[in-house]
Amino acid sequence: MTIWLNGRLMPAEEARIDPADRGFTLGDGLFETIRIKDGALRHLPRHLDRLGAGSALLRLPLPHDSVELTGAMAALIEATGVADGVLRLTLSRGTGARGVLPPADARPTLLMTAAPAAHMTGPVAAIIAGCTRRNEHSPLSRLKSLNYLDSILARQEAAERGADEALLLNGAGRLAESSVATLFLSIGGRLLTPPVADGALPGIRRALILERHGAEEAPLTPDDLARADEAILTNSLGLRPLVAVDGRPVGSGAAGPVLARLLADADL
Amino acid sequence: MTIWLNGRLMPAEEARIDPADRGFTLGDGLFETIRIKDGALRHLPRHLDRLGAGSALLRLPLPHDSVELTGAMAALIEATGVADGVLRLTLSRGTGARGVLPPADARPTLLMTAAPAAHMTGPVAAIIAGCTRRNEHSPLSRLKSLNYLDSILARQEAAERGADEALLLNGAGRLAESSVATLFLSIGGRLLTPPVADGALPGIRRALILERHGAEEAPLTPDDLARADEAILTNSLGLRPLVAVDGRPVGSGAAGPVLARLLADADL
Repeated sequence: MTIWLNGRLMPAEEARIDPADRGFTLGDGLFETIRIKDGALRHLPRHLDRLGAGSALLRLPLPHDSVELTGAMAALIEATGVADGVLRLTLSRGTGARGVLPPADARPTLLMTAAPAAHMTGPVAAIIAGCTRRNEHSPLSRLKSLNYLDSILARQEAAERGADEALLLNGAGRLAESSVATLFLSIGGRLLTPPVADGALPGIRRALILERHGAEEAPLTPDDLARADEAILTNSLGLRPLVAVDGRPVGSGAAGPVLARLLADADL
Repeated sequence: MTIWLNGRLMPAEEARIDPADRGFTLGDGLFETIRIKDGALRHLPRHLDRLGAGSALLRLPLPHDSVELTGAMAALIEATGVADGVLRLTLSRGTGARGVLPPADARPTLLMTAAPAAHMTGPVAAIIAGCTRRNEHSPLSRLKSLNYLDSILARQEAAERGADEALLLNGAGRLAESSVATLFLSIGGRLLTPPVADGALPGIRRALILERHGAEEAPLTPDDLARADEAILTNSLGLRPLVAVDGRPVGSGAAGPVLARLLADADL
């Protein structure tokens, strides 16, 4: 497989991350996963905007502008032949001497890979993770940073308990999101999703559903799962019914009309 | 410089981390930093115990046992000639396909580097980080994981505000630790440090001071800084007076008798 690393396409087996790269030693970086559909990148400007916001917050400058990145992405898609799948962009701080403070002259590492993947629409049975919580007090909850261990722990717990996915609570005990997706609950005719202030990642699809489908941000608790007529998990790569949590069905325990309406929106 | 990667010594410039390594893509791993003093590794069994506990919690098996690791560390110290400094061991999950759930057949990456470093004893002026908080609800607060971005953000804030270091509060607003060190406060003749349950990393030196110097775990708030006669920041690589926080002196604003007592303990 061909990948793109620091300005050029190359075979993956020739690509080398330096062992002193702060992405590897400290998780010092960001990523985006962007859906490729019919050979085109979905909602690329929104992904680039979020990447830019994260880059500013971490003071981790992007080594290429949007035009250069867009061209590099097109070259990667052509070289790999991936028409439907996912493009992942990873930006790390690059190498640095020991210590947490980034070097003033950091030279970031920028990696892009593309892989085939089907858009996921199948049902999900989840648990509420007991092993960890999402940190709504950290700006990292609003970024796709390279610090993914809480999600990894939650998913391992889900697998051990026979579930597909894990919902994470925040420190206050409210629902934040799942390990990799935004949560939406349909309650009494309203479509609700946890606020960013409660630890929800501001997902691209989440924003589109808020803008185009009348969804609203609202604090949600585990009790709201029992009140929900329908629950949905979504990210850039899937739009799925959440049919059970901790072994109890949510709503009818099957895909519902709100999901059908979202799936019918070709612009999501 | 020579490093040790996956079973062998090699020049750093020949060492390659795979771009698909989950340490790089997701921060999926752990590390230890161990002081090298007079050519010997300080408190190695305690570091290996903590590494083992983290490995079990992440279900990330160590590819070598303690005897093999100890031998590899000795070979690295000999090859690098580092007599006084730090050995860093980094354990990551190794490569994996897309997705947060680790592959069942993960082949971990194990990296060790050694570098000269002086034991740090100079004064520290800190801020209380306003940009982020430590997550006492996550087991990661008890591990030296590769997810260090909260500490990086806090240190960047400290640098921008003209300070050397940042103290982090937990979600409840209590003191947890600094970006890289344990906090001790001497108040009314007692030596106190935040509990692990409040988000303090169970540091090796922290444990030794609790065991050998009569220190105690106690919840601490920012107000306690004003009450403290003396404050100390310590990790495996330093034992330093915390002389000011947010521009206000702590205690006398200089190193004090408790620090002198700790520095006189050659076994710390």
